Amino acid sequence: MITIELAREIIDNELKGILSDNSPRELYEPIQYILSLGGKRLRPSLTLLSCNLFTEDIKPAIAPAIALEIFHNFTLVHDDIMDNATLRRGNETVHLKWGLNTAILSGDAMNIVAYNYILKSRSEQLRPILETFNTAALEVCEGQQLDMNFEKIEKVQEKDYLKMIELKTSVLLAACLKIGAIAGNADNTDIELMYKFGINMGIAFQLQDDLLDIYGNAKVFGKEIGKDITSNKKTYLLIKAFEKADNEQLVTLTRWIYAEKFEPQQKIDEVKLLYSELNIKEDTENLIDTYYKKALDNLEKINVGNEKKKELRKVLDALKQRES
Amino acid sequence: MITIELAREIIDNELKGILSDNSPRELYEPIQYILSLGGKRLRPSLTLLSCNLFTEDIKPAIAPAIALEIFHNFTLVHDDIMDNATLRRGNETVHLKWGLNTAILSGDAMNIVAYNYILKSRSEQLRPILETFNTAALEVCEGQQLDMNFEKIEKVQEKDYLKMIELKTSVLLAACLKIGAIAGNADNTDIELMYKFGINMGIAFQLQDDLLDIYGNAKVFGKEIGKDITSNKKTYLLIKAFEKADNEQLVTLTRWIYAEKFEPQQKIDEVKLLYSELNIKEDTENLIDTYYKKALDNLEKINVGNEKKKELRKVLDALKQRES
Repeated sequence: MITIELAREIIDNELKGILSDNSPRELYEPIQYILSLGGKRLRPSLTLLSCNLFTEDIKPAIAPAIALEIFHNFTLVHDDIMDNATLRRGNETVHLKWGLNTAILSGDAMNIVAYNYILKSRSEQLRPILETFNTAALEVCEGQQLDMNFEKIEKVQEKDYLKMIELKTSVLLAACLKIGAIAGNADNTDIELMYKFGINMGIAFQLQDDLLDIYGNAKVFGKEIGKDITSNKKTYLLIKAFEKADNEQLVTLTRWIYAEKFEPQQKIDEVKLLYSELNIKEDTENLIDTYYKKALDNLEKINVGNEKKKELRKVLDALKQRES
Repeated sequence: MITIELAREIIDNELKGILSDNSPRELYEPIQYILSLGGKRLRPSLTLLSCNLFTEDIKPAIAPAIALEIFHNFTLVHDDIMDNATLRRGNETVHLKWGLNTAILSGDAMNIVAYNYILKSRSEQLRPILETFNTAALEVCEGQQLDMNFEKIEKVQEKDYLKMIELKTSVLLAACLKIGAIAGNADNTDIELMYKFGINMGIAFQLQDDLLDIYGNAKVFGKEIGKDITSNKKTYLLIKAFEKADNEQLVTLTRWIYAEKFEPQQKIDEVKLLYSELNIKEDTENLIDTYYKKALDNLEKINVGNEKKKELRKVLDALKQRES
């Protein structure tokens, strides 16, 4: 049985020196760059751990796992353009370093390279893996579009927000787990349970991001605290606050949202005060907890020995406790 | 046996109403828009005609043909961003109409949607079709990068230019023909001949574009004449002129390339005069002819009755004579 640490090592090794023989270099260097910036390698590691639940032979899962990591990084390259981001994992974003055109084109190439790794799947697994991958990939685009739509509308409903983060974040995590299970020759019931496990884990994971933006520790979180508040990002917390606010609180909240000139820290403090009056932190924590419990429940139902689930349970626990 | 006109009709019908049930609409409307702008549907029609060489049952070729047309249009959406183009087929480009972010994201989604159509391939054909598609898709990106690289270097060699247009244009036409042959259960020799037919046809096709930019009829060509000259685009004609020019001609050419202020029509006329002194038009026409002859030779070698090749021969003739 492999650990999450070993899974990550396998992935890092596979990615080392990737595409170094391809040309033109101007196309492939940005790809190697973004893939070399590290990160937790959570997605491909989940694929390996999921496969390993069902078989000791994790080899068939490695190429699809790499495909998923490359696809994820492709979305980061294009998202960073759309968000005008300057930093990614503490380094310059691709479009800042090489310009818009190369960032678009190298991203496109990454998407296609991902399919080259999907193609390395075992013959009988190719179609189900490709189907799972493709469905998730398109849903990620749909989630990103919904997220962009939300910027332009006044009020977002809780259920629409949850649907958006499911598409933008969860379906890819779920696809990673499902593809691992397919590569491990799991039966259909277990494959679907792994998928649901990923969906629930992913929603919890994304809600935590919303929470950490405000209640995290800047040093540990690695990002500025309160940025979602100063930028009026429609997070779960803001949506929930709008939902629960009485008339007076609604006026305060609206005033802050529309304020054109403000002292950032003051806005953060005042909105946090409002969140505190409305128990928004607790509501969010409870919802996160609910989704983690659902995920654990999905995992427990999978038809393999309890001992084998140890590592995925550990991942879930680590995510639950994460501060970054 | 189907004609090129019927092939186009089949494709247009398949594309009608495509993705109309998908949401969010903000993601899918730009995709429907670009696909509705028409065009010759040359690529997917080639897939159907190629399949039809080997079998009367062209059904297995339809979904991959649609994939190829969607992929081609995806590259147009992203290329138009990179080229800062405002018009595509006489209509606003996607990024002009919906903004950069939507153009990037809808393009990404198109690429993935293309794979959904590849997925509809028959089981035993899925892997070879996917492999062919993927190889070509990545090469198209490499060709686009080379084209961008060429903008930044002083002198491009003829062989490098031919390699670039092979990647940027020919490999996709070749993949269309190859995938049609795979869908038609052709044998490997014929599949490879169809691929080569596409490569040679594609190079001729692209060289014609260079020629038409200067010697075409604006009304028929549908584009401004001489734009490649005023923008110093490294076309085959310019590369060849640099190669053949004597010292004096080299000075004239270089002066025009580096001129910061000039009367566009004067620059066009003077460079054309130089091309005429150097027989550049004839050289290009001869090379186009060579590639069309190679393509025809590939087609002739394919192991099916002569009568069946009629339609593809017609396509080749029409392309040879094209003025737009």
